[in-house]
Amino acid sequence: TDAPGENYFGRETLDRLSARRTDQAWLEARRTAADTVYLLFSKLSPMVSTSCRRQGGQPELRLCRLGHDAVKPLLQKPSTVLVFLGVERTDPPSPSRQADEAPRDPPAWFAVGTEEDADEFLAGGGEEKRLFPRSSHRDLLTLSEDEAGVVAQARSVLAWHSRYSFCSTCGGGTRLEDGGYKRSCLNAECPSLRGVHNTCYPRVDPVVIMLVIHPDGQQCLLGRKKMFPAGMFSCLAGFVEPGETLEEAVRRETQEESGVKVGRVQYVSCQPWPMPSSLMIGCLAIAVTTDIRVDENEIEEARWFSRQQVMDSLLDGAQRVLTVPPRQTIAHQLIKHWIGMNANL
Amino acid sequence: TDAPGENYFGRETLDRLSARRTDQAWLEARRTAADTVYLLFSKLSPMVSTSCRRQGGQPELRLCRLGHDAVKPLLQKPSTVLVFLGVERTDPPSPSRQADEAPRDPPAWFAVGTEEDADEFLAGGGEEKRLFPRSSHRDLLTLSEDEAGVVAQARSVLAWHSRYSFCSTCGGGTRLEDGGYKRSCLNAECPSLRGVHNTCYPRVDPVVIMLVIHPDGQQCLLGRKKMFPAGMFSCLAGFVEPGETLEEAVRRETQEESGVKVGRVQYVSCQPWPMPSSLMIGCLAIAVTTDIRVDENEIEEARWFSRQQVMDSLLDGAQRVLTVPPRQTIAHQLIKHWIGMNANL
Ligand SMILES: Nc1ncnc2c1ncn2[C@@H]1O[C@H](COP(=O)(O)O)[C@@H](O)[C@H]1O
Ligand SMILES: Nc1ncnc2c1ncn2[C@@H]1O[C@H](COP(=O)(O)O)[C@@H](O)[C@H]1O
Ligand SMILES: [Mg+2]
Ligand SMILES: [Mg+2]
Ligand SMILES: [Mg+2]
Ligand SMILES: [Mg+2]
Ligand SMILES: [Mg+2]
Ligand SMILES: [Mg+2]
Ligand SMILES: [Zn+2]
Ligand SMILES: [Zn+2]
Repeated sequence: TDAPGENYFGRETLDRLSARRTDQAWLEARRTAADTVYLLFSKLSPMVSTSCRRQGGQPELRLCRLGHDAVKPLLQKPSTVLVFLGVERTDPPSPSRQADEAPRDPPAWFAVGTEEDADEFLAGGGEEKRLFPRSSHRDLLTLSEDEAGVVAQARSVLAWHSRYSFCSTCGGGTRLEDGGYKRSCLNAECPSLRGVHNTCYPRVDPVVIMLVIHPDGQQCLLGRKKMFPAGMFSCLAGFVEPGETLEEAVRRETQEESGVKVGRVQYVSCQPWPMPSSLMIGCLAIAVTTDIRVDENEIEEARWFSRQQVMDSLLDGAQRVLTVPPRQTIAHQLIKHWIGMNANL
Repeated sequence: TDAPGENYFGRETLDRLSARRTDQAWLEARRTAADTVYLLFSKLSPMVSTSCRRQGGQPELRLCRLGHDAVKPLLQKPSTVLVFLGVERTDPPSPSRQADEAPRDPPAWFAVGTEEDADEFLAGGGEEKRLFPRSSHRDLLTLSEDEAGVVAQARSVLAWHSRYSFCSTCGGGTRLEDGGYKRSCLNAECPSLRGVHNTCYPRVDPVVIMLVIHPDGQQCLLGRKKMFPAGMFSCLAGFVEPGETLEEAVRRETQEESGVKVGRVQYVSCQPWPMPSSLMIGCLAIAVTTDIRVDENEIEEARWFSRQQVMDSLLDGAQRVLTVPPRQTIAHQLIKHWIGMNANL
C-alpha cells in the first residue's frame, strides 16, 4: 500500500472500465439493466438520505441509489447529462462456477446530472429522508469512504459538463461522447478536431498543498484565510502553473503566501477534491528561511506552531491555540503525518 | 535538492513574480523598458537561432531575444497575445550598494504569440540564422536547460490562449487579463463570473508516467506505440482522470495498457511537457502480476526487459534489443533511476 494511507475522496470504489465508454451497445444494455445503479445530482449536489445512526452528533449521509425506472423521464430531457462511472469491483470468479456459465458483468453505476431542481425525486424515498445538500463542502464530507470515492469522480465530471458545454476554440456547441468523458465540437471546421488538444476532455487541476517545516524540525508553518472559522489554521496551498514542476510550485506558492523560502520538497500523498475538480498533491517542505511576510490578498495570518501546539490541536479536551481542518482533508493528514514522524528527519 | 535531479523543461529560470500580473502600471513600464526581453512565437513555435557549436551532430538552438522596438508593430495587432513570464533571478543585493540607490528591477521577460506567419522577423538577425522550428517535439529538445524552462512556461500558456479564446460556459468572447494568465468572459450574465470555477485559468493536465518493475525486481515493463521509431520502447503513461489519485491512475493505466496489475507506487520526479500543457508525474510501480495483454488501440507491444538489456540500451556501442527515448524525457530519467537503484529494493 502507499505510504501514509488513504485520503477521503481517494478510494477507487468502482472499476472505471474505460474501454467500454465507446462501446455503445454495451452501454445501452447496461443503462436499462435491472441491477444498474443511478446516482442523481441536481446542481452538482448528490441526492442523499440521512441515516438514523449519528456519528459525533452529525447525521451521516448516504447516496440514494436509484434504478432505471426512476430516472427514465429525466434521461429523456436533452439537458440531462449521463456519465458512466464504472462497474462494481468483484472478487475473481469462484472455481465453483460452471465452465459453461458466462461470466456476468457486475452492476454498472451511472451519474445523472441536471441543472434543474429535482425536488420531485425527494418524495420517492418512503421512510428515508432524502435531500440535496446545498453546502457541498461540508455535507459531502459525511459520506462513507466508499461513497466519497464515487462522488469524487461523478461530481468532477458533472461540474466539467456544467461549465464546458461550449467549444472553447470556436464558441460553438458540443456533443457529449465516450460515456460522458468527452465533448466534441459540432463544427466540422473547428481546429479543436485536428491535432493534439485537451479542449474535449475533462479538466483536472493539480494543486500543491504543503506542510512547511521549520529548519529546526520542531515547528510547522500554518496559515489562515479570512473565510476560515475563528482559530483555524491550515497548510498553504496553490494551483500548479503551466510549465512548472510540483516542487517549484511548492516553493513559489510558499514564498508568495508567507515569504518563507523552501529547499527540499517531499511528496507524501494526494487527494481528489471535487469542488470542482482539483487534485491536491500533498508534500512536506523544508524551510530555509523563517521570517514571515504574508500575501494579504490571500492569507490573513501565517505562523510557526510547535509540535506540542499542533499535537494539542489534534487531541480532544486539550488546551488549544489553534484548530486544524477536519480529518477528511489532506491538510489534516499531512499534519498528522508530520506529528508521527521522527523529529530528527 | 529533490531526489533524482532535474528534468528537461523543469528548470524555473525566471521568477514569475505573479503579484505583478495585476499591476497595470508596473507591467506597462516593463513592457517598454530597454532591458526587457521578448520571445516571439508563431503558431506556437518559438523563434530560435542555430549556433555554430554543434553537439553530437545536431545543431543547438537558442531562443532569439528581441527588444520592444522589434515587436512593437506586432503588439498593436488585436490578435497578438502577450504573456508576462517573469523577471530574471538575481543574487541578493550586494552590500556595496548605496543606501539611497533604489533597488532596480531585474530584466522582465514576455512571450509574444501570433497565429500568423511571422517570417518577416527571420530577416532581422544579421549573421545568425533564424527560424521557427516546425516539428516542435524534436527541435524544442535541443535548447539549453535554462531556455527549455522558459519555453515550458511560455508555450503552455500560449497554447491555452490559442484553444481557449471563447468562454466554454456561454460560448461568448473573452478578455485577456492578469498579464496573460486569465481570460474572463465578456458576458456580464455568464455563470463563469460567479462562484468557484476554473474556466478562466490556464489548464495543466496531470499525466502519470510509470516504470513498472517486475515482482522479481530484475525486469521492467516497457511498451511501444505504433508511431514510435522502430525498436523504441518507453514507459507506460496516461492522463489522470477526474476523482482519481496519482497512485490509482498508475494502477488503472498500467492495467488498461498492458494487463499487468500494480501494487505499491512511489513518486520519483515530474516534468512539465508543454505540448500542449501536460505535467508528467513520474513513478516507480511494483507489479503484482506478470502476464501481458496489451490494449491494441494504444499500444502495439509491451514487454518485460531485463536490467542488462536496459543498461545496454543506454550505452554507446553495446548490442541493443531496444532503444529508449532521449535523455530530455522523464521516461529516460525514470529508467536510469531504476538502473542506478539497488537491485533489492
Ligand atoms: N484552476 C484554477 N481554479 C481556480 N482558481 C485558480 C485556478 N488557477 C489559478 N487560480 C487563481 O488562484 C487563486 C487561488 O490562489 P492559489 O490557490 O494560492 O494558487 C484563485 O483566486 C484564482 O485567482
Ligand atoms: N487532457 C487530455 N489531452 C489529450 N488527450 C486526453 C486527455 N484526457 C484524456 N485523453 C485521451 O487519452 C488518450 C491517451 O491515452 P492515455 O494517455 O493513455 O490516457 C487520448 O487519445 C485521448 O483520447
Ligand atoms: Mg493558496
Ligand atoms: Mg497561485
Ligand atoms: Mg497562492
Ligand atoms: Mg497512455
Ligand atoms: Mg487514459
Ligand atoms: Mg492509456
Ligand atoms: Zn469548436
Ligand atoms: Zn461566458
